[in-house]
Amino acid sequence: MSTPLHLHEDRLFPADPAVRQIARRLYAEVRDLPILSPHGHTDPQWFAGNAPFGNATELLLAPDHYLFRMLYSQGVDLNELGVPSRRGPSNANPREAWRKFAANFYLFNGTPSWLWLNYVFAKVFDLKVRLEPSTADHYFDVIGEKLATDAFRPRALFERFNIEVLATTESPVDTLDHHHKIQSSGWKGRVITAYRPDAVIDPEHEQFKDALQRFAEITGEDVYSWKGYLSAHRKRRADFAKAGATSTDHGHPTAATADLSPVEAQRLFEKVTSGKFTPTDAELFRAAMLVEMAKMSEEDGLVMQIHPGAFRNHNRWLFETFGRDKGADIPEKTEYVQALRPLLDRFGNSKTLSIILFTLDETVYSRELAPLAGHYPALKLGPSWWFHDSPEGMLRFREYTTETAGFYNTVGFNDDTRAFLSIPARHDLARRIDCVYLSRLVAEHRIDEDAAAQVARDLAYRLPKQAYKL
Amino acid sequence: MSTPLHLHEDRLFPADPAVRQIARRLYAEVRDLPILSPHGHTDPQWFAGNAPFGNATELLLAPDHYLFRMLYSQGVDLNELGVPSRRGPSNANPREAWRKFAANFYLFNGTPSWLWLNYVFAKVFDLKVRLEPSTADHYFDVIGEKLATDAFRPRALFERFNIEVLATTESPVDTLDHHHKIQSSGWKGRVITAYRPDAVIDPEHEQFKDALQRFAEITGEDVYSWKGYLSAHRKRRADFAKAGATSTDHGHPTAATADLSPVEAQRLFEKVTSGKFTPTDAELFRAAMLVEMAKMSEEDGLVMQIHPGAFRNHNRWLFETFGRDKGADIPEKTEYVQALRPLLDRFGNSKTLSIILFTLDETVYSRELAPLAGHYPALKLGPSWWFHDSPEGMLRFREYTTETAGFYNTVGFNDDTRAFLSIPARHDLARRIDCVYLSRLVAEHRIDEDAAAQVARDLAYRLPKQAYKL
Amino acid sequence: MSTPLHLHEDRLFPADPAVRQIARRLYAEVRDLPILSPHGHTDPQWFAGNAPFGNATELLLAPDHYLFRMLYSQGVDLNELGVPSRRGPSNANPREAWRKFAANFYLFNGTPSWLWLNYVFAKVFDLKVRLEPSTADHYFDVIGEKLATDAFRPRALFERFNIEVLATTESPVDTLDHHHKIQSSGWKGRVITAYRPDAVIDPEHEQFKDALQRFAEITGEDVYSWKGYLSAHRKRRADFAKAGATSTDHGHPTAATADLSPVEAQRLFEKVTSGKFTPTDAELFRAAMLVEMAKMSEEDGLVMQIHPGAFRNHNRWLFETFGRDKGADIPEKTEYVQALRPLLDRFGNSKTLSIILFTLDETVYSRELAPLAGHYPALKLGPSWWFHDSPEGMLRFREYTTETAGFYNTVGFNDDTRAFLSIPARHDLARRIDCVYLSRLVAEHRIDEDAAAQVARDLAYRLPKQAYKL
Repeated sequence: MSTPLHLHEDRLFPADPAVRQIARRLYAEVRDLPILSPHGHTDPQWFAGNAPFGNATELLLAPDHYLFRMLYSQGVDLNELGVPSRRGPSNANPREAWRKFAANFYLFNGTPSWLWLNYVFAKVFDLKVRLEPSTADHYFDVIGEKLATDAFRPRALFERFNIEVLATTESPVDTLDHHHKIQSSGWKGRVITAYRPDAVIDPEHEQFKDALQRFAEITGEDVYSWKGYLSAHRKRRADFAKAGATSTDHGHPTAATADLSPVEAQRLFEKVTSGKFTPTDAELFRAAMLVEMAKMSEEDGLVMQIHPGAFRNHNRWLFETFGRDKGADIPEKTEYVQALRPLLDRFGNSKTLSIILFTLDETVYSRELAPLAGHYPALKLGPSWWFHDSPEGMLRFREYTTETAGFYNTVGFNDDTRAFLSIPARHDLARRIDCVYLSRLVAEHRIDEDAAAQVARDLAYRLPKQAYKL
Repeated sequence: MSTPLHLHEDRLFPADPAVRQIARRLYAEVRDLPILSPHGHTDPQWFAGNAPFGNATELLLAPDHYLFRMLYSQGVDLNELGVPSRRGPSNANPREAWRKFAANFYLFNGTPSWLWLNYVFAKVFDLKVRLEPSTADHYFDVIGEKLATDAFRPRALFERFNIEVLATTESPVDTLDHHHKIQSSGWKGRVITAYRPDAVIDPEHEQFKDALQRFAEITGEDVYSWKGYLSAHRKRRADFAKAGATSTDHGHPTAATADLSPVEAQRLFEKVTSGKFTPTDAELFRAAMLVEMAKMSEEDGLVMQIHPGAFRNHNRWLFETFGRDKGADIPEKTEYVQALRPLLDRFGNSKTLSIILFTLDETVYSRELAPLAGHYPALKLGPSWWFHDSPEGMLRFREYTTETAGFYNTVGFNDDTRAFLSIPARHDLARRIDCVYLSRLVAEHRIDEDAAAQVARDLAYRLPKQAYKL
Repeated sequence: MSTPLHLHEDRLFPADPAVRQIARRLYAEVRDLPILSPHGHTDPQWFAGNAPFGNATELLLAPDHYLFRMLYSQGVDLNELGVPSRRGPSNANPREAWRKFAANFYLFNGTPSWLWLNYVFAKVFDLKVRLEPSTADHYFDVIGEKLATDAFRPRALFERFNIEVLATTESPVDTLDHHHKIQSSGWKGRVITAYRPDAVIDPEHEQFKDALQRFAEITGEDVYSWKGYLSAHRKRRADFAKAGATSTDHGHPTAATADLSPVEAQRLFEKVTSGKFTPTDAELFRAAMLVEMAKMSEEDGLVMQIHPGAFRNHNRWLFETFGRDKGADIPEKTEYVQALRPLLDRFGNSKTLSIILFTLDETVYSRELAPLAGHYPALKLGPSWWFHDSPEGMLRFREYTTETAGFYNTVGFNDDTRAFLSIPARHDLARRIDCVYLSRLVAEHRIDEDAAAQVARDLAYRLPKQAYKL
């Protein structure tokens, strides 16, 4: 009763035969380039320990909020899918959870998860039939068997995937032990970290108090004084840089920045660390810290990434029961023109500082971000992000930004994923879609084909390498 | 001097021959499915009385704000088009009004009204020539003659249109007499009502005071006490459910919701019914009533529809002279992520309550609505609405929502129309456009064709049936 | 080492062969129509003096912020490109600046500047090879030689470009000497002015104080009294009308309008001219002046253009160093529904006053502007503007506005440019894109081809002529 699974060679390419031919030629230029993954959320422990992954549910379903949120939206309990809660691991049987997933796989029709997963199934696991209720057990068995082999251990997959660099993201209170272990292991895979200080910068973060405490311990600084707090950041940034980091990352609710005087900054710092602060104080502190981080980046050369605009943990009950990152983060309107001005007044004309902007609010592509990046030397545009990391999302990103900012104020693709096995699928999709956009321009005589091929290669390899100083 | 009128079989399908073939095959799956019309504004009196319609102007032009607003925007007076004012019926000669319309029909080039009307002309009235000045009288005569025949009475058309269910929309102070008459008539057509309580919920509605008075009379409740007011709602919801209603509908200026304590709610109720309230009070009361309505829906099972975002009666002079619904309602920015949180905190994780969201602000499709509906079990997305009930509008809806929410968090099509004769045209257009979107996905190997056919059938029939509990 | 430069006859047309055929046929209808340029920023001195233009850098690069801002965003100094600063002219060697530009011309891949420039290179200068580092000197030489010939003087180019009317834009404190000289010269070219009073209306404009002073001198009115100030406007509007003006233009930060009583207006005027005013006062004064301008337009018949939404001079250091119009104006969110209501309450139903709306915020096309223009007789929609004056931008404009407002509430194309030589390129691009949009409608049977041809002709010629009373 099963149906063949087949990845079409021309998938995602335009239907028109002439345009498809152009897309094929462009794609041939980039298909086999190494993968640069300068921003993501894989676990460095995988590459440090190189232990085999578990089963299909543990590896592919339970940690992937793109997947379980869709089933949740249709009335499936997270516990049934193997998702751990605050009380501990799920008690679901992994095979049963996988069957549940297979029974609901049709929900992903038309979504990028369908494309990514089928790539993983076909290319990584060499599965020949579609995932559907009748093949759920076959999938579970085949995936489990393969994961137990050496060829499917993290380092082997890393090499098979032709990854040149993979960046993970760590908190300032992370010991970076996994990264040190990778570095000293003799393994040639380049896995680097990135400095993501939200937990010690955002006074409204639920871990703020604890994180500050650990920040003090790990740095030996008096992080409750403004001066010590800044020194602690400097120390840890240096540690991160030693562990390979070339960038920082900032996931604030808004893009607000503020350039405070040292006295103002110190007073505000005392307020937010006293625990007696308003939401406005918290917002101002995050804003001020973006400028502080920029100052440090001018010194130490780390590229700044700003990822604003998510209302985290929107579902109160789910957050209380299951915790963070459970598919309940919802984008909000995000303003950049006023918000970034204090930062840009100070660093916008810098040729050494590089700030990469992301958004979850597509309305700002043509209205705010492309005009800003098409003018300020310090600004570049990150790729379409999260909900917009998809064929339509990527096409819109190019359609809305290219005419004002061009291709060369963008930085190629970020997979931004925890789903290690999907990395080749995601980069392949991104390369294909850039070729789709370019093929249309070529067919409409809006760019020369040799220039389009150069752009395709630059987007796939040169621009991320340069923008992230890899 | 007339030109042939011809509905092309492939209208709205993509031009590329291979994609068009796919669209044709998908459309063949849904073309003949019965029509489910779960939300609209036809007049139940038509089906209760089954009297013949009047002439072309009275039936097609004077009541249709899509049409007369376009002519008005180009300097034609509403009175000339047969549109009644607050002072009474228009004194325009219906044939003259129709000629005026014919002379300006070119204004509709590129609009959905052009598509809908040509369908009505060709398929319903079997007209063979285009509407233009030289054929205006021919149209007026043919349409008038046909409307006088039994085959063009409301019930005959209802049957000819293959409508399985048609929902109208009534106010809580409506006696539902027409619906009772239909139910007891022995006619098999299923015409149901929907509970639209804006006039008794919105303190700023111009009918609020009168409506409350009638609300008291029709329910026998003390609607000036908070308890009696809620009881009156419960009673009328039960009456509506008996008259077939499966849903409620809420047309507020914003999507604001508020979960007040009983004491707060009662105080606020006293304020807004006293007549001494601020716009902020009115907004809060509407917000609180959405949560009250949700509570009742959890009990009685009526599906909630929320249609926010219209600035009603924007043209002051026109409103004073001609009244409501004269093409002068203008959309505004509409926020959902913060606005719906009180409602979702209480009911977002419910598997029994179903809330269908609509918007006039397309920027929220990918930013807010798809992420919300792609997570919360209680939420579904209504189709692209009103100004966006159009080929480009529908394509954008799919392009902006599918990758995050999939197809199965949407509910198929609503025609939402007063223009009874256009119902088949509108459903045909919606089915075609869904097939257009799917055909592109198939051609680009982003979905399998058998899955696409299943999605097309589900969107046309199964999903509205299920979402509206029909 | 050079590559041929070739403008493909089908550039910008859809790739699908059948649709391309339709686009070709539609374009043949409009290709050779005269150019109407009812809004732009060319320098009337060119046509008054008819002196030859200088070199490639002075004519094409240094004055064009579309070009130098892109190079600036990639780290090139403005001074190197021949851009003058507040301290005086650039000391860059023009040939060196041009080489710099040629070396970076790849940055414009995918942008409208690439399309416009290649048109200018190929069609105006008859260049046969692409601009690249190896051809930079060839370009500089050829362009310089041609510019020195009589055939490349401003009036000769004006005639060669088949321009029927060209509007420039002047401040109320401009003497209009160049226009008078053109008028009395016997030359038949029609170059008209437009009334752009921002400098005497916006209390926050850096020239406000000086401009008021000159406004007094040039009109002989007591412009520091409310009555005299209004009289000065009336006088100058009459002067402008005599110099051919048919329109006014208003470039405010927002679309706010306010209908104040004479007493309120006078008080506010006294406040803003005293120099002691808040940003709120300034905003209200600009808002009130839009209504005052509308009153005068009802009297003198000048069409009003409103161009809101740019945050001017966003880059503080650049503004202080280089001044205005240096590519650092960034769009912001812009609201129209509430903002325009005072103006529309007063004039929205007028059949004599005509107000043309523009936006830099594409989100308002379908949400606000199309519904407003599709209803109010006084409103029309200007074309996609500035950052959105591009193939994708124009297609989006049609896709987002046509279904609600139709084609006939729009006014054809404005080139809005200082770059005189690019005018034919820009109109050609606009005509092609309108044909692209129409060809898709024809191919999908959403419009009849003869109607589409009529629409194409109307957009290219009849509608701008009528809307701007040319």
